[in-house]
Parts: sequence; structure tokens; C-alpha cells
Amino acid sequence: MRIAIDAMGGDHAPKEIVLGAVKAVEAFSDLEVVLVGNETKIKEYIKDSKRIEIIHTDEVILGTDEPVRAVRRKKNASMVLAAKEVSEGRADACISAGNTGALMAAGLFIVGRIEGIERPALTPTLPTIGGEGFVLLDVGANADAKPEHLVQYALMGSVYSEKVRGIDKPRVGLLNIGTEEKKGNELTKHTYEFLQKADIHFIGNVEARDLLNGVADVVVTDGFTGNMVLKTIEGTAMSIMKMLKTSLMSSMKSKLAAAVLKPNLYGLKTKMDYSEYGGAGLFGLKAPVIKAHGSSDANAIYNAIRQAKTMVDHKVIEKIQEAVQK
Amino acid sequence: MRIAIDAMGGDHAPKEIVLGAVKAVEAFSDLEVVLVGNETKIKEYIKDSKRIEIIHTDEVILGTDEPVRAVRRKKNASMVLAAKEVSEGRADACISAGNTGALMAAGLFIVGRIEGIERPALTPTLPTIGGEGFVLLDVGANADAKPEHLVQYALMGSVYSEKVRGIDKPRVGLLNIGTEEKKGNELTKHTYEFLQKADIHFIGNVEARDLLNGVADVVVTDGFTGNMVLKTIEGTAMSIMKMLKTSLMSSMKSKLAAAVLKPNLYGLKTKMDYSEYGGAGLFGLKAPVIKAHGSSDANAIYNAIRQAKTMVDHKVIEKIQEAVQK
Repeated sequence: MRIAIDAMGGDHAPKEIVLGAVKAVEAFSDLEVVLVGNETKIKEYIKDSKRIEIIHTDEVILGTDEPVRAVRRKKNASMVLAAKEVSEGRADACISAGNTGALMAAGLFIVGRIEGIERPALTPTLPTIGGEGFVLLDVGANADAKPEHLVQYALMGSVYSEKVRGIDKPRVGLLNIGTEEKKGNELTKHTYEFLQKADIHFIGNVEARDLLNGVADVVVTDGFTGNMVLKTIEGTAMSIMKMLKTSLMSSMKSKLAAAVLKPNLYGLKTKMDYSEYGGAGLFGLKAPVIKAHGSSDANAIYNAIRQAKTMVDHKVIEKIQEAVQK
Repeated sequence: MRIAIDAMGGDHAPKEIVLGAVKAVEAFSDLEVVLVGNETKIKEYIKDSKRIEIIHTDEVILGTDEPVRAVRRKKNASMVLAAKEVSEGRADACISAGNTGALMAAGLFIVGRIEGIERPALTPTLPTIGGEGFVLLDVGANADAKPEHLVQYALMGSVYSEKVRGIDKPRVGLLNIGTEEKKGNELTKHTYEFLQKADIHFIGNVEARDLLNGVADVVVTDGFTGNMVLKTIEGTAMSIMKMLKTSLMSSMKSKLAAAVLKPNLYGLKTKMDYSEYGGAGLFGLKAPVIKAHGSSDANAIYNAIRQAKTMVDHKVIEKIQEAVQK
């Protein structure tokens, strides 16, 4: 098992990326890691390079780069070379915490789609109150989608949830305005009929209000809506935390009480932190491609590596291919 | 000024509806209210019926009723009769905290659309960290929308924000995946061009993540996406509050600290409570029709009445008509 990692992507690269990789090779004896990026900088954080290879490059895709153009022009960028390790058969999966759009482009153009999959889907695992989480797909690999794409999202999300998250018969919900069958826009009304016939455990429409209550294990929607929901969850959580902090810092009395509650508040933050669940998978490609959060620390990178490894171990790509070709 | 109110709609009807109406006639000397519903029950909460008229009916539209059918068949339902007060010229506006879909149907079929408006838009005012709020339209009056509908939403939201919320040159944002001009799905890409030409203060695309930071005064989107965003904000806020409560009740120490912070936590809840901003307006109809939140208390009803009154005082309907016909 060999996983290629873009060592230069993300807010805390290369330090946290390298430390996450080191932690992963220590944890998994069958794992080899290829770190792509500035060799000198990478080596600062590696003591023992057992099962860690470095591919040196000075080129990097920035967060501000236009994704498709960057992937086409920066042929030696760390992210591009990591994807090539996969497409040329030297690695089983790749990971980056860098430019999301560029990673989607690299996945599509370099790693390539599974035959039969029309659109890959960007798929994060989001937190729920109970802690079990749910996968939401697509959150923006493709803004527009047709019913048949959503059916493929449902199949991919189900295979992943079963094999990687260990859920027997994952409950698949269609994100919609209401729970009744006839509700929704043109897309969801048609998709509902398609999903009823698909070889999945379809539980019907689910509402955005109930997502964090764990109403489904897999939630499918078009990339535009998924992106809105994902960013609304993030924005709302951040805003509430900010207001809470301001309120708790407003008087000496509340400051003292807040100090006592620090572990509780920190625990809440951790619970809302979806980097605990690994990165967002780009499903539908010929190999696991994982987008780790831009703000990933070593632990988030470790979790993304574990996630990619589990996908390879459980042959998730092959299972997706089988499910789609049925 | 005469406002018709469905006294039987909402979780706390008729008590809180009546108390809200009583508070409003006390506050506004030029206001008359027509309460529609069970006369005996309504009278329990009225001491002095000055400027409050009651229209008795026993029929009520329930939350579980199929909206369009209910409005067509329950011809004497309190909500239907309240809408008729408006369409037959006896009232200037109407309010209900009952079945949202039914109120939209009653608005469309009984009150009727402004000439030139193709689709009415359900428009709540949502909270922001700074407290100024923003209007989001549409949140579900029409699941599917075309660019020209979104332009009308932008015009209606601008007129409302200027006249009722007192904002000079309200900033109008298009809800989208990213802030760059070329981003989005087919709908938003086309709408962007239309909005650039419209007679509004268009500030470009806004992201869901920034909504609660007050990035715009008016945010336009199709009803499906708007509904998702609204319910995601509600669901996320509720989930965080629930997790916070569970965490704070987990030990004696945290319970004591939480008791000290009770006013802070309560203040946060109030800040997130959009009933403070009135109800959701159903814009594009021939008169103000306001949907108060189902859980409205007397204060929320009072705010909805004040909102309807301000719309009448500032001739918002006439201004919308002018803006659309330009």
C-alpha cells in the first residue's frame, strides 16, 4: 500500500502534512508514503524516513490559482505529481489539503473517471449530534446534476458507508424541501422515482433541518445545493461560536464561569469538527483521491490517510465500479 | 389601517395571537384589527375590545392539511376568511402563523399577484452577528425559478429593505458557490448578468458561509436553495444549542457555571431568534401577507403586525409595482 501526498497544500504545509504522514506510517506497518514537495522543507520534520519517500519539486498550486488552468500549466506542481503517482501506477491513492478545485481537476484529468461514472462527487463526512456522522454528496464537484447523476451519488455513498464506515444497509436520503414524496423541484421529483428503483436502502426525502440529527447515513443532492448546505452549516456554527465567545467575554463574572466550562466548550468544538472524520472523498475516480480540509493539522492528515487506506483495503473503487455497472 | 389576523393558526393559537393583537392596538392608535376564529375562545383573552373586531368561524386549516386542497375546500377556514377580508377591500394586510403552504395558496388564489409579478417569494428576515439582519428570498414559495424571477425577487427585497428596514441603497447579493463572476450553476450564471443590468445596488455573488456575517442586506436565490439554507441555519443552530445544553448539564461543576451564564446563553438564543424581525413576508401579492412563525408568542405576533403596518404605511406594494413595471 502506497499513498501519495501533496506535502505543500493547505494552510499548515508542509509541517502538519509531514507530521501526519509520519504518524500514519508509525500506525500502519503495511503503509508507504510518498511526499511530494520541497525536499529540504519536508526533511525538517522527518527523523526516520523509513517507508517515507520524497519526490522533490519547487512548483506549487496556490489557493488563488484558477483550478483547471493551474493543473494544465503547472505540470510539476506537488499536487499534479502526486496525482501522477496514482495514474502511473506507483501509488494506490492520493491526498491534498490544497486548492479544492485544482484537486478536482487533477482527479478528473490525471487520475480519471471510473468507466460508467458520468460525474465524480465531492463527498465530505459531516458531524451529527450522536457522533455517527453522514456523507453528503455532491458538495460542488458539479454545480448542475441530472437524476441519473444523483443515483450514481447514492450508489457511491452507499458503497463507501458500508465498506469504510462499517454501516450495514446505509440509509440513503434525498435532500428535499419536505419529506412527502411529491415535494421538491423538478430535479428532486424525478430523482425520487429513480432512487426508488435503485439497488440501495432508500428512505425517501430528508429535510436540511434534520441532517445533524443523523436522519440518514448518505444524503444525496446536486453540487450547488450540497455546497450551500455545507457552507451554511460551517457559517452558522462559526457565527454561533463567535457570538458565544463575545458574550462569555463580556463581564468578569461570565469570564470566570466560561473558564470552568472551557473543556465543555472545547469538546463541543471538536464534535463539530469534521476533520475528525477524515477528508472529503472525490468519488467516482479510478483511485481514492482525498481532499483534506485546508486548515488540516497533523491529526486531520493522519485521518485522511487512514481513510484512503481503508478505501484501498476494502476495494471501494472496485465495489463502486460493480455497483454502477449493474 | 385595518389588519386581518388568522387567530387560529400556530402552536399557541388563539391565546398568543390575541395577546399580540391586543398589544398592537395599544401601541398604534391608527390600527384596527380583525381577528378571525372561534369567538368564545378569542374573547377569553380580550378585556377591552376597542379597535378589535371578531369574525367568528369554527373551521380551521391544520398544519397537516394539504395546502392547496385545504384552501379550496375549507371555504370558511379562519385563514381563508382573513385573506378574503383583504381581497374584498375590508383589510389592508393579513397575517397567519398557520400552515405555510396554505397561506401561500390563500395569498396566490385569494389576495392575488401584483400585475407583472410572475412568482411571489416567501421572504424571512434572518439574524446576523451584528444584529442588522438580511432578507432571504425565495425560501420556498416556488421550488424552481428562472433568472427573471430572481431579478423580481431582488427588486422586491430592495424596496422592502429600503422602505421597511430603513436601509439606504440595500446591498443585493446573489447566493452562489463562490464570489467570482463566472461561478455557479446554469441559473446563477445567467441571473448574474440580469442582476448587473437591474435597477438595484447589486454587489455580486455571496457565499452561504458569510450570510450571518451580514455580507448583504438582500440575498436572492431560487426557492429550493433558499429553503435548504433557511432550514440548515435553523437545524445547525438547534443542534449546537442542544449539544451545548447536554454538555453543560454533564457535571455538577459545569451546571453551576452554566447557571451563572444563563443570561448570556439566553441572550444568544434571542439573537438567533428571527421572530424578533417579524414574520416572513409573501412578497409579490396585491397586499402585505405575513407568515408568522408557527411557534409565535404574543411578541412575535406583535412584531408581525408592526411589520405589516409599516409595509402599508410606506406603500411597499405600490413601490414594488412601480419597480417591476419600470
